[in-house]
Amino acid sequence: MTDTSAAGAPVSRVLSAFLAQFPLQDVPPEVLHEAKRSLLNILATALAGYCDPMVEHALGVLRPFAGAPGAQLIGRAERIDALNAAFLNAAAANVHDYDDTHPGTVMHPTAPVAPALLALAETRPLSGHDLLAALAMGMETECRIGNAVSPGHYRLGWHITATCGVFGAAAAVGKCLGLDETRMLWALGNASVQSCGLVEALGTMAKSLGVGDAARNGLLSALGAQAGIEGPDLPLEGPRGFFKVMGGQEPLPEEITDRLGERWEMRRNTYKLYPGGIVLHAVIDACLDLRSAPGFTHDGITEIVVRSHPLLRQRTDRPNVTSGRESQVSVQHCAAVVLIQGAASLAQFTDQAVADPAVQALRRKVRVEDADMPVEAAEVTIAFADGRTLVQHVACARGGEKRPLSDAEIADKVRALAAYGGSGLDPEPLIAAVWALDAAPDAGALARLAAGRVGASR
Amino acid sequence: MTDTSAAGAPVSRVLSAFLAQFPLQDVPPEVLHEAKRSLLNILATALAGYCDPMVEHALGVLRPFAGAPGAQLIGRAERIDALNAAFLNAAAANVHDYDDTHPGTVMHPTAPVAPALLALAETRPLSGHDLLAALAMGMETECRIGNAVSPGHYRLGWHITATCGVFGAAAAVGKCLGLDETRMLWALGNASVQSCGLVEALGTMAKSLGVGDAARNGLLSALGAQAGIEGPDLPLEGPRGFFKVMGGQEPLPEEITDRLGERWEMRRNTYKLYPGGIVLHAVIDACLDLRSAPGFTHDGITEIVVRSHPLLRQRTDRPNVTSGRESQVSVQHCAAVVLIQGAASLAQFTDQAVADPAVQALRRKVRVEDADMPVEAAEVTIAFADGRTLVQHVACARGGEKRPLSDAEIADKVRALAAYGGSGLDPEPLIAAVWALDAAPDAGALARLAAGRVGASR
Repeated sequence: MTDTSAAGAPVSRVLSAFLAQFPLQDVPPEVLHEAKRSLLNILATALAGYCDPMVEHALGVLRPFAGAPGAQLIGRAERIDALNAAFLNAAAANVHDYDDTHPGTVMHPTAPVAPALLALAETRPLSGHDLLAALAMGMETECRIGNAVSPGHYRLGWHITATCGVFGAAAAVGKCLGLDETRMLWALGNASVQSCGLVEALGTMAKSLGVGDAARNGLLSALGAQAGIEGPDLPLEGPRGFFKVMGGQEPLPEEITDRLGERWEMRRNTYKLYPGGIVLHAVIDACLDLRSAPGFTHDGITEIVVRSHPLLRQRTDRPNVTSGRESQVSVQHCAAVVLIQGAASLAQFTDQAVADPAVQALRRKVRVEDADMPVEAAEVTIAFADGRTLVQHVACARGGEKRPLSDAEIADKVRALAAYGGSGLDPEPLIAAVWALDAAPDAGALARLAAGRVGASR
Repeated sequence: MTDTSAAGAPVSRVLSAFLAQFPLQDVPPEVLHEAKRSLLNILATALAGYCDPMVEHALGVLRPFAGAPGAQLIGRAERIDALNAAFLNAAAANVHDYDDTHPGTVMHPTAPVAPALLALAETRPLSGHDLLAALAMGMETECRIGNAVSPGHYRLGWHITATCGVFGAAAAVGKCLGLDETRMLWALGNASVQSCGLVEALGTMAKSLGVGDAARNGLLSALGAQAGIEGPDLPLEGPRGFFKVMGGQEPLPEEITDRLGERWEMRRNTYKLYPGGIVLHAVIDACLDLRSAPGFTHDGITEIVVRSHPLLRQRTDRPNVTSGRESQVSVQHCAAVVLIQGAASLAQFTDQAVADPAVQALRRKVRVEDADMPVEAAEVTIAFADGRTLVQHVACARGGEKRPLSDAEIADKVRALAAYGGSGLDPEPLIAAVWALDAAPDAGALARLAAGRVGASR
């Protein structure tokens, strides 16, 4: 694409040159369409997320220090300043882990980026097309950086959604600000200094601080670069830069530079049909299939064995969950609640569902085994006291890369979560506006369409 | 001190129990006095720091999104919301690397903590004594966590002032909020998720984003914990916690738990007589001594050899500096400018000083060699064209742990930097208020005494 993409050029410079020089107008239509799907999906999850206590607590803490209400909180009655809107909307979009997944990295790519852009769009003129194209370029940035450090980065303990998301938000906002190559490099450098988020916090409210920070600090990084805040020359590959300090493995810089602007990694993005950890979705599919068999009852189950790629065990073997939040990353809870209730929506991952005595009892019968199968597959075997055994194998979970959600299913997710979250929002105008966003003169109008009723009584 | 300090108890819990249970009234007088010295020192450096372009840029970016002006910006005419005040005052205090140094970790412990407390003190009643005692406990927290991961953490590339500072700020604010043991643990957990800052950014403006974030996010972490934002159970020693992911070495948890409340690590804090990297201070002392010899002139110098601990070379071997900021971590610039100008204050580390042709020419003659000596020592050898050689050995730099600044010298630093930064502030009431702070009913009054004239024309 550019002179600097020559072999051997510093990857930080190749990336910032691409971001500065690639015209928003040249983002291909199929990429813009994927950006619409991604945007719609996180509007859905934010609508449900805004009634989560974590987001309520965070808003309560930030409100006394917040600036003029220049940007919309999705699904809420309130507006707040753009930096806090980016933080809170990102936290809300991801709080249930119900947002999207980039299969290469298991990152949630849209939550850190889109909220930063929506907030920006309310501070200055930004067309719908440019918001979508910048969203795509920001997602592309974080997914490629994520690929360059996967799987070592997450395995070491970095919450990749937050740690790489801050680069995506900085790149996307920087593109909308029209940063030149040097300032785009500063934006990435400013992001590198603020990259944070530990896997240790998953299953706790603190996780959402990291995701919110990614959006807020990405926005801040780009605005800072525009204002003249200089970053390091080699934020990614420098001797004390992101790769070396946080990479967790030998970096694969070609994952960042390979056919930039031609191959779009963000098109691999997937959208969840169920909340909770993506690695659990094949287990949910298997359990739903088993549950729907004629005459199925969970009475008499003596053992449930879940077999999958070792990642499932590593991330979700949590037999003793105590909160709805934690239950979203517990294979024991997932299998038990789905087999009993025959559903896997947000209602199955609440404190109430976790405390249900029948679910508790069945959770104790779930065992996880490593198997030689891909991470998107799972096999569930149920043994009954009468000697019967049921087995269900799922090769690829619904909503995964090989069985993607349709546009209609994503729109249905908006409808369902607008209702679940109590936003009081009519989803139809919002859905229509996203599908037509590439022709909209003012992306800020979309943000205002996401206004709801939560918090209206304050 | 507490039941939980028993051997084998999780270090995160031992620390949070100590922080929750140790009475502010029991902080010993000599510790309170060191807290006063630390506070006075960062007020001095912030007064000078507020005219730095980085801080101006950051304020310009944050101002449109900032909340009601509830907290004072040190040395400036403006007030801003408490979260942004914590960020900006911390960035200003550390921007010149002229603040304090904890010898065990080479951390600047006060910049992330005191600004968070000063901002807090303007939002709710807080006595001067309690601010000082909480400052001491926050510094103790970050210094001990820093000791537990030193030297591997910094060596890996973590800017320890920022990465550990966020814990110090969270602990100090949490103490003032009266958090119980559980919520103090959440505050530390919320801090762990937001711990960030890469050494790669040193010498650039981006460094100060990390330091500002440490103060702001520490304050946010504690306020969040108070509001109910739960963190992980084992933020420090969990399998994907701070030690494992960011430690850079086998952690030394006993550095955190050893005689908590009895041995005060923060009493080792030191205060800089010169700006720039602490490892350069013995070099500066040696050059000042050489320069003050009767008849000394830099004409005819053919070579300057600086010998010290390898750390000096690793951190400051930067022959080709282009900015005042970078010059603060360049041994070549340091030796050259001091030998020519006979001083080492902020004026010697400006873009102008860097661009001086005489300094440029002399910089090219400086060479660094590793030697078997402690990091606080240095030896400078000057060779002249006429065959003469001068050698100066410094065993411990002025301002170091073995040659601490007196109280009067720290007060003089406030006077000098109040003048340098153009704050227009009369330093005497501020200095007097800090020395009397343990008897002051309202710590917020101290913050307001730090108001200056910078930015008054806006």
